[in-house]
Amino acid sequence: MPVIKFDRLRVVLVATRNPLNLGAAARAMSNFGFARLRVVNPYPLAFREARSAVGASKLLGNAKEYSTVAQAVADCTLVVGTTAVGHRELQHPLRRLEYGARLIRKQLASSRVALLFGSEKFGLSNENLSHCHWLLHIPTSRENISMNLGQAVAVCLYELVRDAKALGPTEKQALAAAGDVERITAMLFDALYASGFLTRRPTTDAEERVRRLVRRLKLPARDVASWLGILRQIVWKLRTPAGKPR
Amino acid sequence: MPVIKFDRLRVVLVATRNPLNLGAAARAMSNFGFARLRVVNPYPLAFREARSAVGASKLLGNAKEYSTVAQAVADCTLVVGTTAVGHRELQHPLRRLEYGARLIRKQLASSRVALLFGSEKFGLSNENLSHCHWLLHIPTSRENISMNLGQAVAVCLYELVRDAKALGPTEKQALAAAGDVERITAMLFDALYASGFLTRRPTTDAEERVRRLVRRLKLPARDVASWLGILRQIVWKLRTPAGKPR
Repeated sequence: MPVIKFDRLRVVLVATRNPLNLGAAARAMSNFGFARLRVVNPYPLAFREARSAVGASKLLGNAKEYSTVAQAVADCTLVVGTTAVGHRELQHPLRRLEYGARLIRKQLASSRVALLFGSEKFGLSNENLSHCHWLLHIPTSRENISMNLGQAVAVCLYELVRDAKALGPTEKQALAAAGDVERITAMLFDALYASGFLTRRPTTDAEERVRRLVRRLKLPARDVASWLGILRQIVWKLRTPAGKPR
Repeated sequence: MPVIKFDRLRVVLVATRNPLNLGAAARAMSNFGFARLRVVNPYPLAFREARSAVGASKLLGNAKEYSTVAQAVADCTLVVGTTAVGHRELQHPLRRLEYGARLIRKQLASSRVALLFGSEKFGLSNENLSHCHWLLHIPTSRENISMNLGQAVAVCLYELVRDAKALGPTEKQALAAAGDVERITAMLFDALYASGFLTRRPTTDAEERVRRLVRRLKLPARDVASWLGILRQIVWKLRTPAGKPR
């Protein structure tokens, strides 16, 4: 996967009404490393009141305002609209986010891309959509296709930055070495004999069973000392005659 | 990829303060087909006022309330906490969302999984985290790692339902057949001759150039009639002597 050219994406919010949504969209952009916000005909109040978005006030301050979609996307070679589908007959090719994001990433490698989000109430109008090359939809459940604007922006931008190859753990828990596991096992044997667990019902393979039991725990290396300490204390207590002061 | 057992996931919101966030989390759950919400010690007002979440009021009504994390996750075999990392020393294995979601999906195939989200202000406490098997983090930009709660829930659930194989377009635009493209090309020739474009600067390969030009347009099948109509009208107008009534 090529490195994403974050700086080439224009997030375009059309006719946003709610300042909380404008702020949330800006916050998500900031979370995922995108900085270029464009707003088309926002409700004036929404634009003014949104400036307090957590960690994104600078981004909002730099947002550019336009009065038409045509102006807002003029310098982009790919214009993608977002839609909840189902609310009207679509005149455009429709792509699921997983696939559409791949196309957007590809285009960003060479030129600017505009990603449009419509108003909370009506989405993108047919006039807005006529500026788009194709439409993107988030794979929502049929029972509730209408997403909150800020959440839709977050999900789309996440898909753009997600790394399909990030499949390994970022921090692997080191497992205890076999020698340490065996020390713990031995201490456990002591406890099991002292408590009568192993002497009460002796079987030929009792110790092997316990040994396998301990192996299946996948003991982390960092916890060896703690477990040894716990077992040692139990063994000591078990072997101390009742009534004798500790 | 196995079908996700949506019904086995428990989204657990711990000490949520803002009713808008509780509502947004519920809405995202509804958008992505998850229904089981559990709340631990929500601010009472938040829980009461959140009931109006778009498309998710039933889900909120069915939410179960607990006073401890231990109770809220008791029937789950895997407990995963979410964290913005960096704000404290982590005592847990930490997994990026792309990878962690794969492990959660796997576990959901056989048993219940709890996914925990902490309060807006403090995240999950160390006590909360001690109930978790491992932690999940969304790959945010270093400059702003703190996500809005509702957006974080949306992104995590989206990753759980996203289909890595959904890489084909869901609606492919059928291209015009070669015969139709050639009819349009022929009509364009008429227009170019009638307008003088082709006669003014005649070159040997002029027609071939125009033909290739039209091929590169990737004309959709559905637009053939429209383009023929447009060109036909232009040709007619070009051939009608000026002044003659239409």
